Amino acid sequence: MFTCVLDPKSRVTLCDQLYDALKEEIGRTAMGTRMPSKRQLAEHLHVSTATVEAAYGRLISEGLCESRPRSGIFVTAQADLVRTARTENEQPIRWDFGTGAADAAHFPYATWARLMREVLSEQNTEFLLLGDPQGAANLREEIAGLLHRLRGIDVPPEAIVLGAGTESLAAALVPLIGREKLFAVEDPGYSRVRRILVSGGVRIAPTPLYQGAIDVRALYMSGAGAAYVTPSHQFPTGKEMHMEQREALLRWAGETGGYILEDDYDSEFHFSGVCEPALRAMDTGGQVIYMNTFSRTLAPGLRLSFMVLPEALIGRYRMMHATCSVPGFEQETLRKFIAGGYLERHIARMRVVYRSRLQVLEKTAQALRLGEVAPCSAGLHVLLNVSGTVPAQELVPLAAQAGVRLMRLCDYGVMRGKQDERVVLLGFSGMDEAAIQEGLEALKRAWF
Amino acid sequence: MFTCVLDPKSRVTLCDQLYDALKEEIGRTAMGTRMPSKRQLAEHLHVSTATVEAAYGRLISEGLCESRPRSGIFVTAQADLVRTARTENEQPIRWDFGTGAADAAHFPYATWARLMREVLSEQNTEFLLLGDPQGAANLREEIAGLLHRLRGIDVPPEAIVLGAGTESLAAALVPLIGREKLFAVEDPGYSRVRRILVSGGVRIAPTPLYQGAIDVRALYMSGAGAAYVTPSHQFPTGKEMHMEQREALLRWAGETGGYILEDDYDSEFHFSGVCEPALRAMDTGGQVIYMNTFSRTLAPGLRLSFMVLPEALIGRYRMMHATCSVPGFEQETLRKFIAGGYLERHIARMRVVYRSRLQVLEKTAQALRLGEVAPCSAGLHVLLNVSGTVPAQELVPLAAQAGVRLMRLCDYGVMRGKQDERVVLLGFSGMDEAAIQEGLEALKRAWF
Repeated sequence: MFTCVLDPKSRVTLCDQLYDALKEEIGRTAMGTRMPSKRQLAEHLHVSTATVEAAYGRLISEGLCESRPRSGIFVTAQADLVRTARTENEQPIRWDFGTGAADAAHFPYATWARLMREVLSEQNTEFLLLGDPQGAANLREEIAGLLHRLRGIDVPPEAIVLGAGTESLAAALVPLIGREKLFAVEDPGYSRVRRILVSGGVRIAPTPLYQGAIDVRALYMSGAGAAYVTPSHQFPTGKEMHMEQREALLRWAGETGGYILEDDYDSEFHFSGVCEPALRAMDTGGQVIYMNTFSRTLAPGLRLSFMVLPEALIGRYRMMHATCSVPGFEQETLRKFIAGGYLERHIARMRVVYRSRLQVLEKTAQALRLGEVAPCSAGLHVLLNVSGTVPAQELVPLAAQAGVRLMRLCDYGVMRGKQDERVVLLGFSGMDEAAIQEGLEALKRAWF
Repeated sequence: MFTCVLDPKSRVTLCDQLYDALKEEIGRTAMGTRMPSKRQLAEHLHVSTATVEAAYGRLISEGLCESRPRSGIFVTAQADLVRTARTENEQPIRWDFGTGAADAAHFPYATWARLMREVLSEQNTEFLLLGDPQGAANLREEIAGLLHRLRGIDVPPEAIVLGAGTESLAAALVPLIGREKLFAVEDPGYSRVRRILVSGGVRIAPTPLYQGAIDVRALYMSGAGAAYVTPSHQFPTGKEMHMEQREALLRWAGETGGYILEDDYDSEFHFSGVCEPALRAMDTGGQVIYMNTFSRTLAPGLRLSFMVLPEALIGRYRMMHATCSVPGFEQETLRKFIAGGYLERHIARMRVVYRSRLQVLEKTAQALRLGEVAPCSAGLHVLLNVSGTVPAQELVPLAAQAGVRLMRLCDYGVMRGKQDERVVLLGFSGMDEAAIQEGLEALKRAWF
């Protein structure tokens, strides 16, 4: 049990003392660790529950802990964040196998900066005004071209909506589709979008996977009116949705009138074999909402995502939104970047870089006998089924102590009961080959 | 009744022909005009209702028309948009008395561009990553300093949340405060926020004004759990909330536990007399959420707004949001802009510019005997009670025909019944003094 010395005579309040001590403790503690309960801690330290509550409250408000209903208070993972709000005392992360990163070192900084300077020097004051609520028309034309070339999807620019991140687009979809509808999400699945939907006030139906994709039978049974899916690279299992599953999903949409929210993230990074067509390209009934982001192909800090709405929803979108959340200067920089062919060249280059990293990761994991890496044909993370005898629950804390950040597969499910689940996610978009090797070696030392 | 010749033998579909003809008609029609009903038009033109419906559907999806339940289809005003999606045939706007503009000509473009170039040249790849979900800590410190200097509000940077526009912040507030709560809004009031709250799935209580501010008695009666108010410059009436009204509103919040959403827009532009303190500065119970934007003090196209949350809501915000919607490069440019004192200098300069415009507007309106301009001590628009004999409903269409864009006060109310309301809003932030004079002269010719 965590303990500390509190001085009731100090000029610093008991709450402040406790807060400082807990914060220091958290700095030494692995993410996901359960903290002592308020009552336990109050009894143990001979202070009031209110004092403990206030100290925990501050830690929670700072994002260092989170309270999970009926489970207790846990040190946060801030799992899908690239950067964590690191406190002075927190364990430094030397190797980050988190997902969701884009490689800042390979970002075509010089080109992006040159284009933005160009935009600035043109002194077009139009970018200072509120533009089209869906984003600038000429940028949407470039995105339509990109979709055609990269994914074989033909959409009119009028159907495209630009937004500051997938989360803000997902939030906008809730009233568009209807808050009374039940939203199915993959379980395990992408927790950030799940959280946004819940905040949006809809009921969600966490739906199990069948052969790596959302179980369409369960979808029928749930009575869902919309389904959020990641067909190119299911998050987090990494599976690609087969053609039969795609057809079944579209059939579900056609028969029930449901909407499919197709998050096509990572589709640009396909390493082997043939890439399945996007659901949007197969859709004839106007029931697929296609979503994608430039966070992975460029950088998450630029806050650039887009979606393609069925015709029936565009008018509603324009009624609800008078503004676009992406600044004018940035829109124009992105337009030049796509029009100049820089984005596609960057993606092609990164495909080579990432494929090579994937090979290093697979080879090293095998050589170190860390466990089995699931075969991976697309996307920027793989699954590793860890061998050895270390208890499953210890995998993440032990890695953290060794300076390695990663997550277990079961952390992404709504049900976190699988305490013996030994599968971890290894994202390789944020580290170069040497760092990947070092990180895996650190894991070897930590786990074996 | 609108009419056009449709050729059933043409290779262009009837729907496309009708669409083109209607679009051309809309280009000649004043905003707010009611279009013929689908049935009327179908009968009149001897086409099927489905054809008319499809043509209207496209116009609605393009934002050129809107369908109002039980009223019909109307040419959209896109009232608070600075730029409208102008079609080729639409009446050109020569003088725009719309509200919500910021003067692009006075924007310190060179300074902003220089600072952004500086940020780019520093090659800090941290801006490519996802930063703090509330916005960069050092930017929030600058904003806290600004709030202290401009408004006498002392808040910790930890309480500040940056976002891409007031609308996205308002949308984030709904789940934070609780969707089950009734949200009171001023009536007449700011329709964009009203629309965002409705999209967010909350019930709203349009609350009448008493002496220019939200009627606190009505607020008690409605049982609202939150109230969105514009105390510095009530939108659209332009009134400042008196001290007694502020005290009453805070008393309401204290006694009922309700939240006050204080939108402090335009508080920077106070031209005479003493400025009342912000509600946030008077709040001792942690029940005021302060909101403001850089859209007016800088430019709307930059998409920069912020809010200050009570301590109790910060943790919840961080739980719900893993990302900030403002790009990293832009955050850093804004930080430098505030830290360098450029923002305050710009505001001081614009205060002089706007005060002078206001004087020109008041003097010209008086000289032209357009009507009575309500006394105005703050903000960037005034109310004009139009004299003369032109029917009230004709004021806006006649102005539009003369190339002048403006709105009537009653257009901002939930109840639009006041067909004899002769008060119009004259925004003066988007035009220089000469254009203001010309615009008023055009109104004189149009109305008298």
